[in-house]
Amino acid sequence: MAYLNEHYLKLQAGYLFPEISRRVQAFCESHPHPANRLIRLGIGDVTEPLPAAAVAALHRAADDMARRETFRGYGPEQGYDFLRQAIARNDFRDRGVQVADDEVFVSDGSKCDGGNILDILGHRNRVAVMDPVYPVYVDTNVMAGHTGTADAQGAYSGLIYLPCTPENAFVPQLPAEPVDLIYLCYPNNPTGATATREQLAAWVDYARRHQALILYDAAYEAFITDPSLPRSIFEIPGARSCAIEFRSFSKNGGFTGTRCAFTVVPKELEAEGPEGQRRPLHALWLRRMTTKFNGVSYLVQRAAEALYSTEGKAQIAQLVQFYLGNARILRDAATAAGFEIHGGLNAPYLWARLPAGLSSWTAFDRLLHEASLVVTPGSGFGRHGEGFIRISAFNHREQVEEAASRLRALRW
Amino acid sequence: MAYLNEHYLKLQAGYLFPEISRRVQAFCESHPHPANRLIRLGIGDVTEPLPAAAVAALHRAADDMARRETFRGYGPEQGYDFLRQAIARNDFRDRGVQVADDEVFVSDGSKCDGGNILDILGHRNRVAVMDPVYPVYVDTNVMAGHTGTADAQGAYSGLIYLPCTPENAFVPQLPAEPVDLIYLCYPNNPTGATATREQLAAWVDYARRHQALILYDAAYEAFITDPSLPRSIFEIPGARSCAIEFRSFSKNGGFTGTRCAFTVVPKELEAEGPEGQRRPLHALWLRRMTTKFNGVSYLVQRAAEALYSTEGKAQIAQLVQFYLGNARILRDAATAAGFEIHGGLNAPYLWARLPAGLSSWTAFDRLLHEASLVVTPGSGFGRHGEGFIRISAFNHREQVEEAASRLRALRW
Repeated sequence: MAYLNEHYLKLQAGYLFPEISRRVQAFCESHPHPANRLIRLGIGDVTEPLPAAAVAALHRAADDMARRETFRGYGPEQGYDFLRQAIARNDFRDRGVQVADDEVFVSDGSKCDGGNILDILGHRNRVAVMDPVYPVYVDTNVMAGHTGTADAQGAYSGLIYLPCTPENAFVPQLPAEPVDLIYLCYPNNPTGATATREQLAAWVDYARRHQALILYDAAYEAFITDPSLPRSIFEIPGARSCAIEFRSFSKNGGFTGTRCAFTVVPKELEAEGPEGQRRPLHALWLRRMTTKFNGVSYLVQRAAEALYSTEGKAQIAQLVQFYLGNARILRDAATAAGFEIHGGLNAPYLWARLPAGLSSWTAFDRLLHEASLVVTPGSGFGRHGEGFIRISAFNHREQVEEAASRLRALRW
Repeated sequence: MAYLNEHYLKLQAGYLFPEISRRVQAFCESHPHPANRLIRLGIGDVTEPLPAAAVAALHRAADDMARRETFRGYGPEQGYDFLRQAIARNDFRDRGVQVADDEVFVSDGSKCDGGNILDILGHRNRVAVMDPVYPVYVDTNVMAGHTGTADAQGAYSGLIYLPCTPENAFVPQLPAEPVDLIYLCYPNNPTGATATREQLAAWVDYARRHQALILYDAAYEAFITDPSLPRSIFEIPGARSCAIEFRSFSKNGGFTGTRCAFTVVPKELEAEGPEGQRRPLHALWLRRMTTKFNGVSYLVQRAAEALYSTEGKAQIAQLVQFYLGNARILRDAATAAGFEIHGGLNAPYLWARLPAGLSSWTAFDRLLHEASLVVTPGSGFGRHGEGFIRISAFNHREQVEEAASRLRALRW
């Protein structure tokens, strides 16, 4: 008799984005020809073409694969040296942050790494997540058996939820009870909030005192324009002994469909075994990646490398500025429409507090039915997301301008 | 205090291929300028360029990514319909095997899928593997906590090893004790053996009687030239209710560095929960893939699709014939050298029984030092691999011919 992983049975059936798709589809079916009117500000997916430097690299890599002399078979599972070097140098060492080439693990996605990291961690860890939270952190812990069942609001017993609200500027207070794993994400998805150096330092201090591990998601780092804000948790002294950082080319290089990301695991980072023995997580993650992964496509790694060329950097900067320009347009319009707007300054997401008494799904439905706009209901990200909606700035400019004018025309 | 996954501490430090690399490197360092003489018949990595149809598709897809109108962001995690359809139709339905498009899950590697499948299976399963065995099946079960520690020969307590020897033609007897998960691989890595329809039917019958699950690795399916041999376990009646099949483009299309594979999960396949409830594994795998994976690069999926075009099929056939031609040359030479050769007829691997008394590592060392040939010691694949070496037919023709002449010159 084959047995299934019973923890999957605890997962909530209606995952956020499928439920949104369902409602959008129902709306489209009952409204003939609305497709050209519908503007999607929901899922945070990029819309603009790949940077020219990446496209050129893809063509060159395809030609490499066509010739015996330059053909590439299996690459190193943890990534080609050419890319690990480019990452460690440009994203870290050139900014004064100590990261060795071989502390960079290239992967096919930050979502994948964020889930897979649990492979090397034990079941005894007490896990803390932000609320609202990117659902993948929660769901992968449920799958791994680290939680009980969910309550009516979708919160799982056994997880420690850290409220993020306008009152704490969406940076959670340190937990009252001891925790072993803490998921932090800045610039934040969904709130668009950032964390200051002092706020991150307090978390690093907490983690070091409790020998806890911070899983730091910096997938939206490229959107930080304020030079006083940290772009990596490793800018904080002491973070190398208590943090893993996840990065992605999805949102800076527009790689959501091309697929490349990376994870930084410092060599001094340790965790504890059942008899109190401490072991470096770097060795465990290397073992995990070499055994359960076969590396990112050579072509894609060449494209990611090209993002670090002079032209590539300029093209990324232009893309990021473009999406931040979208965010500015949407911020102004949503503010005029009566929302209290957070985020969207150093992040591609706006987190809009709804007028009092309005629920996230009610606002979602009204925006869909009255303005043909698709947003993401904040309650889908957790209890403290109720009363908010997330508006994504990833879109073509003309769509953003049209969405802005529809937002301005709405009265709540 | 962050805790690590203690099961990782049970993993044997010296994984097979790193140990081979170490010995090869030591040899190269002590023998000036041997690099041009060294011929690697070890790791099964392809050497010939990508099929022209795939290269052309990569160029077209790169151009798609460069234009707003054809740019692709996030794709479906389980694979684009264009590729799932091409796979289900060409590899299955056109051959009379029932597989629906949405039973095909596109991934970045068979090794990944083979490890990740354990995510959806419970810890109570009794697991059987072939011996010799592809090490990833074993290691991923160790990591998941399904075993005890390893003995001196590297065999883990708690796993059921099914001996595969020349006496049973490398197809294991049905187990005496009941098992819940069975890993089968045909054409086999490392033995190069194939299973007949009758042999697979006996396993399907066993699995159905015990409601067990067969994890069927058919990554080398393209090398089957004997039309009487099954290319998929789903050719066997009843297999849809007891088997998952893993396939890859690595060895037919030469995608080891390009990265694309797929897994077929029939919808009627079920496993049991803790209260005896039965659930379809298809839904669980879909949930796993949508939560912990973000799909294969659009470009790579287009390249894989192109393998199913008329030109693509012809180019694959040519590649497979080329490597099988290598296998024939190596078979003849190794036989002349006094080895008893198995495999290499419908598989890219030769499994050479060594003259009596010679151990796998002794033969490895002699071939390295006396002929500058790198092979894989059979004992690295398990206890029943002792006394064998694996010879890979993946190489350039001139290298294979040179290797063959060196093999013929050796006396054991």
